[in-house]
Amino acid sequence: MKGLDFFFRPKSVAVIGASRDREKIGYCVLREMKKRYKGRVYPINPRARSIMGLKCYSSVKDLGDLDLAVITVPCRVVPLVLRECVEKGIEAVVIITSGYSETGKEGRDREEELKRIIRGSRTRVIGVNCLGIYDAYSGVDTLFLPESKFRRPGRGGISFITQSGAFGSTILDLMSFEGIGISKFVSYGNQTDVKENELLEYLDRDRKTRVIVAYIEGISDGRRFMGVAGKAVKNTPVVIFKAGKTEMGSRAASSHTGSLAGSYRIYEAAFKQTGVLEAQSVEEMFDFAKVLEFLKPPKGDRIAVVTNGGGFGVIISDAVIRNGLKLADFSGESRRRLRGILPGYANIHNPLDLIGDADKERYEKALNVLIKDPNVDGVIAIPLLQTFSLEPGVIDVIAGIKKKTGKPIIACATGGGYIRRHLARLEGKGVPAYISPERAVRAMKALVYYGRVKDS
Amino acid sequence: MKGLDFFFRPKSVAVIGASRDREKIGYCVLREMKKRYKGRVYPINPRARSIMGLKCYSSVKDLGDLDLAVITVPCRVVPLVLRECVEKGIEAVVIITSGYSETGKEGRDREEELKRIIRGSRTRVIGVNCLGIYDAYSGVDTLFLPESKFRRPGRGGISFITQSGAFGSTILDLMSFEGIGISKFVSYGNQTDVKENELLEYLDRDRKTRVIVAYIEGISDGRRFMGVAGKAVKNTPVVIFKAGKTEMGSRAASSHTGSLAGSYRIYEAAFKQTGVLEAQSVEEMFDFAKVLEFLKPPKGDRIAVVTNGGGFGVIISDAVIRNGLKLADFSGESRRRLRGILPGYANIHNPLDLIGDADKERYEKALNVLIKDPNVDGVIAIPLLQTFSLEPGVIDVIAGIKKKTGKPIIACATGGGYIRRHLARLEGKGVPAYISPERAVRAMKALVYYGRVKDS
Repeated sequence: MKGLDFFFRPKSVAVIGASRDREKIGYCVLREMKKRYKGRVYPINPRARSIMGLKCYSSVKDLGDLDLAVITVPCRVVPLVLRECVEKGIEAVVIITSGYSETGKEGRDREEELKRIIRGSRTRVIGVNCLGIYDAYSGVDTLFLPESKFRRPGRGGISFITQSGAFGSTILDLMSFEGIGISKFVSYGNQTDVKENELLEYLDRDRKTRVIVAYIEGISDGRRFMGVAGKAVKNTPVVIFKAGKTEMGSRAASSHTGSLAGSYRIYEAAFKQTGVLEAQSVEEMFDFAKVLEFLKPPKGDRIAVVTNGGGFGVIISDAVIRNGLKLADFSGESRRRLRGILPGYANIHNPLDLIGDADKERYEKALNVLIKDPNVDGVIAIPLLQTFSLEPGVIDVIAGIKKKTGKPIIACATGGGYIRRHLARLEGKGVPAYISPERAVRAMKALVYYGRVKDS
Repeated sequence: MKGLDFFFRPKSVAVIGASRDREKIGYCVLREMKKRYKGRVYPINPRARSIMGLKCYSSVKDLGDLDLAVITVPCRVVPLVLRECVEKGIEAVVIITSGYSETGKEGRDREEELKRIIRGSRTRVIGVNCLGIYDAYSGVDTLFLPESKFRRPGRGGISFITQSGAFGSTILDLMSFEGIGISKFVSYGNQTDVKENELLEYLDRDRKTRVIVAYIEGISDGRRFMGVAGKAVKNTPVVIFKAGKTEMGSRAASSHTGSLAGSYRIYEAAFKQTGVLEAQSVEEMFDFAKVLEFLKPPKGDRIAVVTNGGGFGVIISDAVIRNGLKLADFSGESRRRLRGILPGYANIHNPLDLIGDADKERYEKALNVLIKDPNVDGVIAIPLLQTFSLEPGVIDVIAGIKKKTGKPIIACATGGGYIRRHLARLEGKGVPAYISPERAVRAMKALVYYGRVKDS
């Protein structure tokens, strides 16, 4: 292990400020860490002998080797315990405590003191003023939010770093609800030591991370960001949501995380130049991330649309064009074959309307034609499962087609519980699925865009 | 009763083509109609004596008074049974059967024949090629989709008309999932007789309809639409999603419902001139509808944002500005009062960050200040319920504030099941609630826009 590895795959963890009081952050962190993390966990609290059945220690100095320390004590005690961590040579320290530069001048001074304490040592710090880390694989969990309010997502290939802890927690909760898995989550707070650029670099090299998502208000070092992001995107797609785009938003950001958000135009240009995908809404962050995790980019931007609900064909066509993609022109061969599959009165064009009485066999035949068409780069399928004749087996048909083609297939279906269960089944089989047609198209656009970035 | 009333509040209904065969549309329509509709239901089928325990008749001619007939028989039999309806003087007929102008020349001729049959009679027709009607109050339900695939929404103040039946059904399903109630749903298909303008006019006069939502591909009579919509919006907000905006989409629309979608610019101009609110995505249709149903428009566009998650404050500020709204400048009096409520290091400005340790009391005090501020026209509250200190009771706080102010309050919270349950509670208390910050802001924008339309 080296560098930031100690944060994510420590062999042992100390929770400094561990507590028996359920209202304390040190209680929550210890409880969540105990749940999933398989290494050794040491509560540190000089006024307790044991907590949650674990023997308590007065100081990290009383322990043997230690990889990660999580500091949850109040501001005024932090310098003391941090100094002990440094003296002990602990590689990784997460400081959850707040009350630093985000609160003004005195807080800034307190934060400077922490920087002085670690300067020249081997100790790296994530925080202050953060939620810290959740690693779905190793079980490291420093998030002090009880599971009753907030469910952790399962394992997956997306890593997510965020400048805002509270924002990050709501998004983790959303991911878990939507069945989107995670690899590593980092709420990095004030970036007292470890900064977003270093995290980006680390995650790009991380084997379990297939997509990086970031919520940022400001960037610590723009020049370095350009280099790091530009290099990362060649292997790992990077999706960024930039908050503080407007003057008012940027003013709000400065009192939130102390970020100097700077001109949004500069960020926009930097994202474009490096090939970072910019999410324009909270939903887009993970709409984009899941398509990039599941699918290889298409070779071009010519999209085939297939549905059994004509209205959705119209809506998707509009969205395809307005998002700068193209509706594929089916080849003569495809048209002939489709003519044999569809009722006589059906129009054979793109969007392909399989007509209201379509069943899963018609879907299968049509999809088999479309994925072989040299004029088609990617497919969006919109199965209206509410219709009379369409069996839920169409889910397996779409997943089966996805397996045997290199062209990306995205699904979309709108509706309630019945639909959502089937969309979840589709995603379980590796087909990204969206509840709204506009979101499905924007995901395809992101995938096309990433294909161009990778090839450039 | 007069005019279209017979479709929505009939005293008796005949299902022509009622069937015992579960695969037949006539089976589904009869079954769903029996479930909720309280009037008399007559199955019409010359080859059966009784279906689902109801006595069967050979023809509508064998019955006494009849207000509504639903035709589910194949194309070739429709003229015969429609003629019988006309001869009997039935006021309202829904023709679900497809195979008309949407299929080409011969179909067009068949549809012309139906027009000739009803010409000069008192019989009005909704359809052909449609799902027909769902009225959550009277229980009229001609939708041939089983409830296992598709749940009907409960009662509410939104009426929804749609040119695409399949699209409409997915949206009803979505509404039911999101707990949005409906008054009247009409899938009007080919508009053989009753057209969207007449439906708009009817719904504007309908007491149970507080908001009209429409999915359209093309409009039958643009000049009449301008008059009808322009008049309607003064009493009833009208939200329209226009499909077929691009040339490709409009081509798809013409083979879907035979609509000549025409230039989108003309539609855009017409919507603007009449004061119709245009939804730009499927989600916006009901994001707008529910805010218009629950809240009175604000007097201006100066929005106060209050949250306990700074990141969301930044995101909402961006969205407020980018959507052309203003961030309210709190009055001196408000600032003084807020200063007494918040921790010393907090910044008192808009967006108001109640800081990570906010509880429901702090929300209550802050909201009480904001709604009394003469510089504030409306409020967006973003309670991060996942945080450590914020109790779910904040929901009742927000709902209580909403009750005692005339200023609109919209809520937003992102997350999973825990959050969604609380958002549903909020909506149950009349506060429109959104899962994403961008959607919450666009809903507020729609409300501000409608206020201007009403005042103009």
